[in-house]
Amino acid sequence: MKKLFLFIAILFTATVSHSADPDSVLIRKIYDAELTNGECYQNLKVLCKSIGHRLSGSPQAEQAVYWGKKIMEKAGFDKVYLQEVMVPHWVRGKNESGMLILSNYPKRKDGTPVSSSIKITALGGSVGTNGKLTAEVIEVNDFEELKRLGPENIKGKIVLFNRPFDPTYIHTFNSYGHCVDQRVHGAKEAAQYGAKAVVIRSMTHGEGDHPHTGAMKYDDSIPKIPAVAVSTVVADEISKELKAGRPVKMTLNLDCQWLPDVKSYNVIGEITGKEFPDEIISVGGHLDSWDIGEGAHDDGAGCVQSMEALRLFKVLGIQPKHTLRAVLFMNEENGLRGGKKYAEQAHEKNEKHIAALESDRGGFVPRGFAIEGNQKEIDWLQSLAPLFKAYDLHYFEPGGSGADIGPLKKYFPEIVLFGFVPDSQRYFDHHHAETDVFENVNRRELELGSAAMAAFLYVLDIHLANH
Amino acid sequence: MKKLFLFIAILFTATVSHSADPDSVLIRKIYDAELTNGECYQNLKVLCKSIGHRLSGSPQAEQAVYWGKKIMEKAGFDKVYLQEVMVPHWVRGKNESGMLILSNYPKRKDGTPVSSSIKITALGGSVGTNGKLTAEVIEVNDFEELKRLGPENIKGKIVLFNRPFDPTYIHTFNSYGHCVDQRVHGAKEAAQYGAKAVVIRSMTHGEGDHPHTGAMKYDDSIPKIPAVAVSTVVADEISKELKAGRPVKMTLNLDCQWLPDVKSYNVIGEITGKEFPDEIISVGGHLDSWDIGEGAHDDGAGCVQSMEALRLFKVLGIQPKHTLRAVLFMNEENGLRGGKKYAEQAHEKNEKHIAALESDRGGFVPRGFAIEGNQKEIDWLQSLAPLFKAYDLHYFEPGGSGADIGPLKKYFPEIVLFGFVPDSQRYFDHHHAETDVFENVNRRELELGSAAMAAFLYVLDIHLANH
Repeated sequence: MKKLFLFIAILFTATVSHSADPDSVLIRKIYDAELTNGECYQNLKVLCKSIGHRLSGSPQAEQAVYWGKKIMEKAGFDKVYLQEVMVPHWVRGKNESGMLILSNYPKRKDGTPVSSSIKITALGGSVGTNGKLTAEVIEVNDFEELKRLGPENIKGKIVLFNRPFDPTYIHTFNSYGHCVDQRVHGAKEAAQYGAKAVVIRSMTHGEGDHPHTGAMKYDDSIPKIPAVAVSTVVADEISKELKAGRPVKMTLNLDCQWLPDVKSYNVIGEITGKEFPDEIISVGGHLDSWDIGEGAHDDGAGCVQSMEALRLFKVLGIQPKHTLRAVLFMNEENGLRGGKKYAEQAHEKNEKHIAALESDRGGFVPRGFAIEGNQKEIDWLQSLAPLFKAYDLHYFEPGGSGADIGPLKKYFPEIVLFGFVPDSQRYFDHHHAETDVFENVNRRELELGSAAMAAFLYVLDIHLANH
Repeated sequence: MKKLFLFIAILFTATVSHSADPDSVLIRKIYDAELTNGECYQNLKVLCKSIGHRLSGSPQAEQAVYWGKKIMEKAGFDKVYLQEVMVPHWVRGKNESGMLILSNYPKRKDGTPVSSSIKITALGGSVGTNGKLTAEVIEVNDFEELKRLGPENIKGKIVLFNRPFDPTYIHTFNSYGHCVDQRVHGAKEAAQYGAKAVVIRSMTHGEGDHPHTGAMKYDDSIPKIPAVAVSTVVADEISKELKAGRPVKMTLNLDCQWLPDVKSYNVIGEITGKEFPDEIISVGGHLDSWDIGEGAHDDGAGCVQSMEALRLFKVLGIQPKHTLRAVLFMNEENGLRGGKKYAEQAHEKNEKHIAALESDRGGFVPRGFAIEGNQKEIDWLQSLAPLFKAYDLHYFEPGGSGADIGPLKKYFPEIVLFGFVPDSQRYFDHHHAETDVFENVNRRELELGSAAMAAFLYVLDIHLANH
C-alpha cells in the first residue's frame, strides 16, 4: 500500500460521523473510550494465562469466579455478588491416548511404521475405556448409514463419524449445526448396534492436526460407550485407508470419569437503573470452558466484553435507565446449570427481566446483532443499521441469542433476547481446541466487540424506556 | 456453544437465498465453486513458502513472475503473457543491526545491562550508514515539532519519529494515513536540520516487538540520511527514557544500497470477451513485496485472488461479455513502475480500458468494494447491497481503489476503478513485517475474497454491457 493510494483513501473513505445526534455522539464516545483505554484485552490475558482453561468443577473454574468478581468490584459496579449453583464435574484423567493401527500391507514408502500415536480428545462427558480398548474401525457419515449397516457390521467395532463441515455455508455456525449431531448423539446411536466406541471427526473446517472436544449425551437405556474426537487430518487418513479396502484398527485409552457435583457460582455485577431500577437488562458470557486450550474465544471473550460494556457506562458516567447486569454464567459447556439457575432465581425473586444480550461466538470483529423477539422488536433492531454503519455493523437479523440467556424465556415470555454476532470465519478453527488461546484473539477485534455491545446496550436501554 | 443454541441459530439465521434471480444463482455457484474447490490458498502457499519475499529486482521476484505465468496457463486463460518493465533495485544488505544505549544511571532493577541489541529494519530505499553510526536520540511527533526544535537541537542527532496510530479510527487505513508521513518524509525533513539519521515508530497498532519497513523518499537537494523503523515496543521504551530526562543513544549499522535497474515483468492473463473483446476490465494485485516476511497479505493475497477470480469464470464456463484481464503488477512497493507501464502500454496500444479492480488490502474477510467513479456508478455499486447481503458484503462506498490501477486514470479518464475492501483490523499487525507470512492468512477468509471478487466482476461485466 502506497502513500498515493492512501491519500485517496483518506479523502474518500466514508469516515465516522460526528453527527450532532446525541445517540451518535454517545456511541462515538463509547468507541473512543474503549479503543483508547480498553481493559478487556488485558483482562482476557489474565484469565487465559494466569488461570487457563476452566471446566465446571475444576480449581481453575473456581479461580475464574473470583477473578471475575474482582474485576467487577474494581470497575465500581453498584452491586457485585455470586449466585450459587451446583455443577457437574467431569474430569478427563491423565492417561488419555490413542493409537492408529493401519494394516500391515502395503508398507508405507518412507518405511515408517503403519501404526502411530495420534492425538485424541475424549468428548466431554464420555466414560473411560477401563484399560486399553482396541477394535477395528468402520466409517459412517450419518445415523441412516449406521442403521443400514446394522448390528452385524457394527458390533464390536469402533465407529468413525466422518461427515465433514459443508464449506459452502457462509456463516460457519450453519456448517457446525449440520454436523454436530455426530458429536452429541453419535455414541448412543452407535451403541444401539453394539459398537465398542465412537470416534468423531472434529467439528471444524480447519486442516490443523489437533482434535476438538465438546459435549455429548448418553441415554440411560443404552450402553455408554467411550467417545473421542480426532483431527480432520486423522479422520481423512482413516477414511482413505478404509476406502482403499485396507482395514484400520484403533486403540483408545481413556480414564475420564464423572465425579460428584461441585458447588460453583455465576458471577453477577450491576449498575442500578435510574428510572426503572427493578427492570433488568442482562449481558453475559460463560465463564466455564472446555479443558483444553484456554477458553479464550469460547467464552473468555464474552465474559470480558460483558464486564467491559458495563465498565464503559461507569467510565463515561452514563447512568442507565434500567438496571444493567453483567453475568458470567457457569457451566454452559456441559450442563447449562448456570443459565438455568439464573433464570430460576430471577423468577423466584420476582425480578422483572426485559432484555438480555449474550456474547458467545468468539472475540472476532463485530458484524452486528441477532434477535429473538417479535416483529416490532425486529423492526427496531433493523432500524439501528444507519447508526452503526460507520462502525461496520451491518448484521441485524432474527437469529439465536445465546444458550445461557435462553432459559429466561421460560419465566419471562415477553423478554427480548439478543446475540452479539462477530465474524464467524475463524471461530471453528479454535473452538473447543488447544488453539483457543489468548494469542489467537486480536486486541482491536475484541475491543470493537466490547464497544459494539456497550453502544448497543445504550440504545436498547433508551428504546425500552420509550416503548 | 451448545446444541440448543445452535438449533435456534439454524432455525432463524438468515441463510443464503437460492433465489431464481439469475445473478443470485450465478453468484451462489461462484461461491460454491470457490469454497469447495478453491485453489487460491494453495497457490499462496507456494508463493510464500517456495519463493518467499520478493522485492523488485530480487531473484525471488523473478521466480514469482514465472510462478504467476504458470498458474494462469494452467487455468487455461485465453492469453497469458509478460509485460517488460524496468524496476528499481534496492538491497538491504546483510549486516543490518541496531543497538540501544540507555544512560548508565540509574541501573535497571533486574541488573540487566542498559544497552541492548534491538531489531531494526532499514526503510526501503534508505542509504547505508557507511560503518557504524552512533548518536544521541531526540524524539518528535511531527514535522512542526522538528521545526520548533530547529538545527540547534537536531544537528548531529538521531531523530525518532514517534507519533502513534490513532486507535479511534474504525478503519485502520485511516490510522496509517495519519502517520505514514513520518516514514515517507521523515528522513528528508530531519536532514534539513542536520540530523544524522531517523528512526521511525513502526506503522502499526500492534504491540509486537518486530519493526515494519516501507517506502521512504529523499529529495536530491537535501542530504540523504539513513532511515530505519523500530517496533512500537522499542519506540515506547526510548520515549519513556527521554521523557524521564535520561539521554538515549543508538548505534545503527546499515549496508543497504541502490543497484542498477533490473528488467522485470507484469504478468498478464486474459479471458476474451464474447461481445466486446476490445473492451478491457482488469483485476489485479502486486507481485512484488517488501523483503521481510513473505508478502502474504501484501500482496500475495491480491495476486492469487485476481487469478482465482478469472479461473472461476473458466471453471464455471462463464464467458464474460468484455475481456477480463488478471494482472500481477511488479514494483508497487517502491516505484509503481509496473502500474505505470501497464497504463502507458494500454495507451500506446490503443486499448480500451473501461474498469479495473484491485485487491491490495490483505486477504482478510470481505466487507465490500470501494469505488472511484461518478455518481451514477456509485449509485450502481450501492444498488448491489441486496445481492451480496447473504455473503456479508455490506461496504459499497466511494473510496480509493488501488495504487497499481490508479495510473490508468491518466489515459482513460472515463474508467471506473474499484478497490476490494476486506476487513482492516488485522492488516497493520503484519503489514511490511516479518509476520506477513502464509500462516497468518486464513483459508476461508482468502477464498471468500476470491469469490467476492469473481462475483463482483460478473455483475460488473453485465452492468457495463448494459450501460
